[in-house]
Amino acid sequence: MRKNNNKDIKNLRKKKNYTYRPISSALERVLYNPIKVLDKGFIRVVDYMGNDSSIVQAARVSYGKGTKKKSLDKGLIRYLLRHKHTTPFEMCEIKLHVKLPIFIARQWIRHRTANINEYSARYSILEDEFYIPRKINLAKQSTSNKQGRGNEIDNELAKKIIQILKEDSKRNYNNYLWMLNEEEYEEYDNTRESLSRELARINLTLNTYTQWYWKVDLHNFMHFLSLRADSHSQFEIRAYADILLELLKKWVPITYEAFCSYKLNSADLSAEALEVIKKFIKGKKVKRENTSLSQREWDELILLLN
Amino acid sequence: MRKNNNKDIKNLRKKKNYTYRPISSALERVLYNPIKVLDKGFIRVVDYMGNDSSIVQAARVSYGKGTKKKSLDKGLIRYLLRHKHTTPFEMCEIKLHVKLPIFIARQWIRHRTANINEYSARYSILEDEFYIPRKINLAKQSTSNKQGRGNEIDNELAKKIIQILKEDSKRNYNNYLWMLNEEEYEEYDNTRESLSRELARINLTLNTYTQWYWKVDLHNFMHFLSLRADSHSQFEIRAYADILLELLKKWVPITYEAFCSYKLNSADLSAEALEVIKKFIKGKKVKRENTSLSQREWDELILLLN
Amino acid sequence: MRKNNNKDIKNLRKKKNYTYRPISSALERVLYNPIKVLDKGFIRVVDYMGNDSSIVQAARVSYGKGTKKKSLDKGLIRYLLRHKHTTPFEMCEIKLHVKLPIFIARQWIRHRTANINEYSARYSILEDEFYIPRKINLAKQSTSNKQGRGNEIDNELAKKIIQILKEDSKRNYNNYLWMLNEEEYEEYDNTRESLSRELARINLTLNTYTQWYWKVDLHNFMHFLSLRADSHSQFEIRAYADILLELLKKWVPITYEAFCSYKLNSADLSAEALEVIKKFIKGKKVKRENTSLSQREWDELILLLN
Amino acid sequence: MRKNNNKDIKNLRKKKNYTYRPISSALERVLYNPIKVLDKGFIRVVDYMGNDSSIVQAARVSYGKGTKKKSLDKGLIRYLLRHKHTTPFEMCEIKLHVKLPIFIARQWIRHRTANINEYSARYSILEDEFYIPRKINLAKQSTSNKQGRGNEIDNELAKKIIQILKEDSKRNYNNYLWMLNEEEYEEYDNTRESLSRELARINLTLNTYTQWYWKVDLHNFMHFLSLRADSHSQFEIRAYADILLELLKKWVPITYEAFCSYKLNSADLSAEALEVIKKFIKGKKVKRENTSLSQREWDELILLLN
Repeated sequence: MRKNNNKDIKNLRKKKNYTYRPISSALERVLYNPIKVLDKGFIRVVDYMGNDSSIVQAARVSYGKGTKKKSLDKGLIRYLLRHKHTTPFEMCEIKLHVKLPIFIARQWIRHRTANINEYSARYSILEDEFYIPRKINLAKQSTSNKQGRGNEIDNELAKKIIQILKEDSKRNYNNYLWMLNEEEYEEYDNTRESLSRELARINLTLNTYTQWYWKVDLHNFMHFLSLRADSHSQFEIRAYADILLELLKKWVPITYEAFCSYKLNSADLSAEALEVIKKFIKGKKVKRENTSLSQREWDELILLLN
Repeated sequence: MRKNNNKDIKNLRKKKNYTYRPISSALERVLYNPIKVLDKGFIRVVDYMGNDSSIVQAARVSYGKGTKKKSLDKGLIRYLLRHKHTTPFEMCEIKLHVKLPIFIARQWIRHRTANINEYSARYSILEDEFYIPRKINLAKQSTSNKQGRGNEIDNELAKKIIQILKEDSKRNYNNYLWMLNEEEYEEYDNTRESLSRELARINLTLNTYTQWYWKVDLHNFMHFLSLRADSHSQFEIRAYADILLELLKKWVPITYEAFCSYKLNSADLSAEALEVIKKFIKGKKVKRENTSLSQREWDELILLLN
Repeated sequence: MRKNNNKDIKNLRKKKNYTYRPISSALERVLYNPIKVLDKGFIRVVDYMGNDSSIVQAARVSYGKGTKKKSLDKGLIRYLLRHKHTTPFEMCEIKLHVKLPIFIARQWIRHRTANINEYSARYSILEDEFYIPRKINLAKQSTSNKQGRGNEIDNELAKKIIQILKEDSKRNYNNYLWMLNEEEYEEYDNTRESLSRELARINLTLNTYTQWYWKVDLHNFMHFLSLRADSHSQFEIRAYADILLELLKKWVPITYEAFCSYKLNSADLSAEALEVIKKFIKGKKVKRENTSLSQREWDELILLLN
Repeated sequence: MRKNNNKDIKNLRKKKNYTYRPISSALERVLYNPIKVLDKGFIRVVDYMGNDSSIVQAARVSYGKGTKKKSLDKGLIRYLLRHKHTTPFEMCEIKLHVKLPIFIARQWIRHRTANINEYSARYSILEDEFYIPRKINLAKQSTSNKQGRGNEIDNELAKKIIQILKEDSKRNYNNYLWMLNEEEYEEYDNTRESLSRELARINLTLNTYTQWYWKVDLHNFMHFLSLRADSHSQFEIRAYADILLELLKKWVPITYEAFCSYKLNSADLSAEALEVIKKFIKGKKVKRENTSLSQREWDELILLLN
C-alpha cells in the first residue's frame, strides 16, 4: 500500500453523505479500508447495496421495508435459503477491490456471474510484488487426491523452494522492467527502444500480484463462498474466502447464519447414502459391499457421521 | 396505489442515514416515489449503487475516487462508451419496483442479465387492475411492418374495442375471484371449495397488471434502453423506457450524455452503406441499383441522411 | 398439430446425414417427433450436441474421446456431479421446440441461462388453443402451503370451473379475432379497420398456448429439472419436467443415473439436522424442543428418514 | 502435438455416424484437425450444432426447416442481424479445443457467456511450451495509444529480447519440474519430497501454453470476433480471431457475409458525427472547432471517410 493510496482512502472516509437507502452499519465501519490477505494481497469493500431487510422486501415485492419484526425476517430468510428461492438474494450487491496473485485470479474469474475490472498490464506497469508462500504452507503433493496438497514439506527443502520462487519472480520482473525501458525506470536508457507493455508482461510469473474491482450479487457471493471456502479449494483462494465470510457476517448477519446452516456446514446426501443412514438409525449393521456406494463415498459418509 | 403503500413509502423517506458510499443527489430526491406510467403502472427507484465517478474509479482500479476533475471524468466516460469498454459501466447498479401489464413483463424479461422478483400469483391474489389503452393509442396493424403499428383507428371502432377489453378483463377477473372464493372476497361462500391460486389465475387476461423488483447494472440498463426506447419497440414498453431514460439522466448525467451521442441517437452503417456515403460526399450521383443495398436498406439510409 | 407440420417433420426424418460428431442413438430415434404434454402441448427435440463421453472428454481436455472404458466414464461422471464440478456438463447442449400455456412459459423463462425464441404474437396470429385442466387436476388451495395445491375439488364444482375456463378463453379469443379482423378470418369485414396484432393479443387469457425454441446446456438442463421435477413445483410445469427427465435418460444415460443419485433423490441436510441424525444413529432420543430446528424443518427431517 | 494425440484424432475421423441433425459439410471436413496459431498454439473444432438454416428455423419457430429457398434465408438472416434480433443466432453452438498462451487465455475468458474447461495445473503437469514472439512481431510501445503497439523494434534489441524470454521461461519451467520432482521427471530424486502441483505452477511465466475446451453460441461467437478481430485488439489474440473468422465462414456462410456487412466492416456513427456527414454531403466546409467532436473523434471520422 503506497502512501498516496492511504491518503486517497482517508479522504473517502472523511466525507459522510446522507442517504435514504438502507445501510449496513458494520460494513460502513470498514468501508474502503484494506483487509490483509496472504503476504501482499488485500480485500477492500468499495460499495454495497442492501442489507438483510432488502431480501425480505424483494421476496414480498413490498412498497416499504420487508416485515416489521426482525424475527419474521429471520424466519423468511431461512425459509428462502432452505428452499433454494435464490432470486431475493440477488437483490443485494457488493463491490470489492481485491489484490491477488495472478494464479488465484485465474481460479476466481471462473465464477462468471459477476462484474470485473482488472488492472490492465497493456496500459500500465505492474508493481514488483509476488506471492511467496510461508514455509508452513509449502505442502507436498497429496498422494490420495490428485489435485490436492498433502503434509508440510521438509524445512530445508522449503527454504530452497522459497529461494527459487523469490529469485525467479524477481529476475523475470527485472527483465520485464529492462524490456519496458520506461523513463521512470531507474536504469532508463534513452538510446534503447521500449518494448510495448502488452508484450513485456508475458515474461512475468503467475505469482505476480494483480488487482481488480469485483462486483457480485449476494446469491452469487454465497455460491462463490460455498465452493471456495471449502476444504477442497486451494489454500490461497481459501485465504480470500475466509475474509469474504467475515464480510458476509458483517453485511447481512441473518443471511450469514442461514448460510452456515444450509450451505457452509450442511451435507448433501445421495439417494444411496440416505438409504444407509436409514438403516443405521434402525440399528442395523451395514457393510459397504452390500451398498452401492463406492469406497470413497463410503469413507466420506462415515467421516460425515463422526 | 393503496393508502398503506403510500404510508410505507413516506416512512422510508423519513429516515435519513449516514453513509460513506457515493451518492446521486438527484436519485435520492426521487427515491421510493412512484412515477406513473401508462394508466395504472409505475416505476419506483428502490436502491442504487454508484454514480458517474464510480465508472472512472473502476476503469482505473483506483484506491480513491476516479479523477480529480469532472472534465477528465467526462472525457474518459465518453472514451469508454465509444470504444465499447463496457465493464466499467457494470460497476453501477440500480433497483426498481415496477408495476406493468403482463404482456409487457413478457417482453421485458427477455433481457436476461438482470435480477427479478415478481409478485407471485401462486402465493397471493392479484388486484383488479388492467391496462386499457387510450383511444389515441389504438392503432391499426401496420401494412409495411408485419410487427408494427400503423395509424390511429377510427373513433367509433376504438370505443367499441375499449369496451371489449374492459368487459373481457373484468369478467375474467370476477370469475377468478369466484373460483378463488377466499374469505376476504365480498361474495365469499363458505359452502363452496376454493380453487388453488396457481390454477385460478390462468383465467386472467394478458393486460392484467403485475409487479416486480428489477435490478440491473448500468451497462445492461443502457442496453435495455437502446433496444426499448427505440421506435421499433412497442408503444407500451417505450412508455416505461422513456421514464427509465429520465432516471438515467438523474443518476449518471455524464454517462447519459455519452449514451445519447453514441447509442441513442447514433447510427450503425453497414460496410455497403458506408461506401455509398463516401460517394455522396464526393458529390457523385448514386442509384440504388448500382449498390448492393436492398430497397429497404436504401430507404433507411436516405431517411438517416435527411 | 396441423397436417403441414406433420409433413415438415416427416421430411426432416427422411434425410440422413453423415457426421463425425458424437451421436446419441436414442435421441436420434425421437428427433423432431412431438411428445405430448398436458392437453395440447408438446416437446420435440430439434437438435443436440454431445453425449456422455463428451463430458469426460471436456473434463480431461482430451484430443480424442474421453476414456476407453465405459466403467471409467461412469466413475468420472459420478465424481464430477458429486463434487459439483459442473463445467464439463456445460459441454453438452440440447435444443427443444416446446408448446406450452403462457402461464407456464412465465415460470419457465425465469431460468435465464438458456436461449429462447418465442413465437411472436406481435408478428403472427396465435391459434385458438387453451389449456383446460382435467377435473382430476383441479385442486383446492392448500391450507398448509400458501403457494401449493391441496386435495381434488368437488366434482360438480370442478365441472363448473372447467366450463368457466373454456368459455372465458374462447370468448376472449373470439374477440381477439374480431379486433384483428384479418382477411383469413371467416367473418372478415372489409369495411372495418384491423387492430394491430401487438394490441389485440392483450385480450387473451394466460392459459393460451404459445410455442418456443429453447436451447440449454446439460448442466442448466439438470438444474432446471432439479427445481421443476420437484414436488413443490406446479403440477403443469412438472408435466413438462417429467418428459424432459425421460429425454435426459435417453440422451446421457450415465449422467441421468448420477443425477438421480446426487440431485433428484438426494437430500440436503442442514448443519442442525445433521447433528440430530448423529444422535439418532447413536440411539439417543431427541425431542424437537432441544434442537434448533423449526417445527417445519423437524417434520421435513422425520419425513425424509421414513 | 504428440504422436498419441495425432492417433486419437485420426481415430475420431475414422468413424462416420448417421444423424438426422442438420450438418455443415465444410466444418465436417475440418472436424478435430488442429489449425496452427502462433508458434505452438492451435484451434480444433470438436463439435457444432446447427447451420444457417437453424437460425431461420428458430426465428420462425418452425416445425420443419426454415424456408424453402436459400435466397429467403439470406434475406431474413441479414434482416435479423441488421436489426439486432440476436436470439436466433444463439440457436447455433460451436465447441473448440484451443491451445493458447496464458496471457491470451486471461483476455479470452473475459467473455463470460461461454462454457470453458481448462487443463488443470493443480491436477496435471504442464508441458514445456512457451510463446516466443517472432522478431517481426516485437513492437515498440505506441506513443499515441497507451495500450497499443507501435513500430517494429530494432533488430539487435529484438534478438536480445527473444533470448531473455526464452531463457526466463525455460529456467522457470525447469525449476517447476525440479520442485515437482515427479517420477517421470528425468532427474527424479527419490530422496527429495515433491512440492504439490498447485504450488509449483506459480513459478511459470505468463507465456506458458495452456489448453481448454471452449463452447459458445453463434451470437456470442460473433460478439467475440467483433471485439477481438478488431485492430485495437492485441496481435496475439487477433491471430486466434482470424482463424475463428475462417471457421465462421465455413460453418455459416450466409451469416458470415451478413457479419462482414453489419459488424466487421461497419461503422458506428455518433449523433455528432452524423451531423458532420450530413453537412459534408451538402457540400459544406466543416471545421472541427465548429463541431462538438474531440480531435480524436474527428481524426477517426476523417479516416473512416477516406
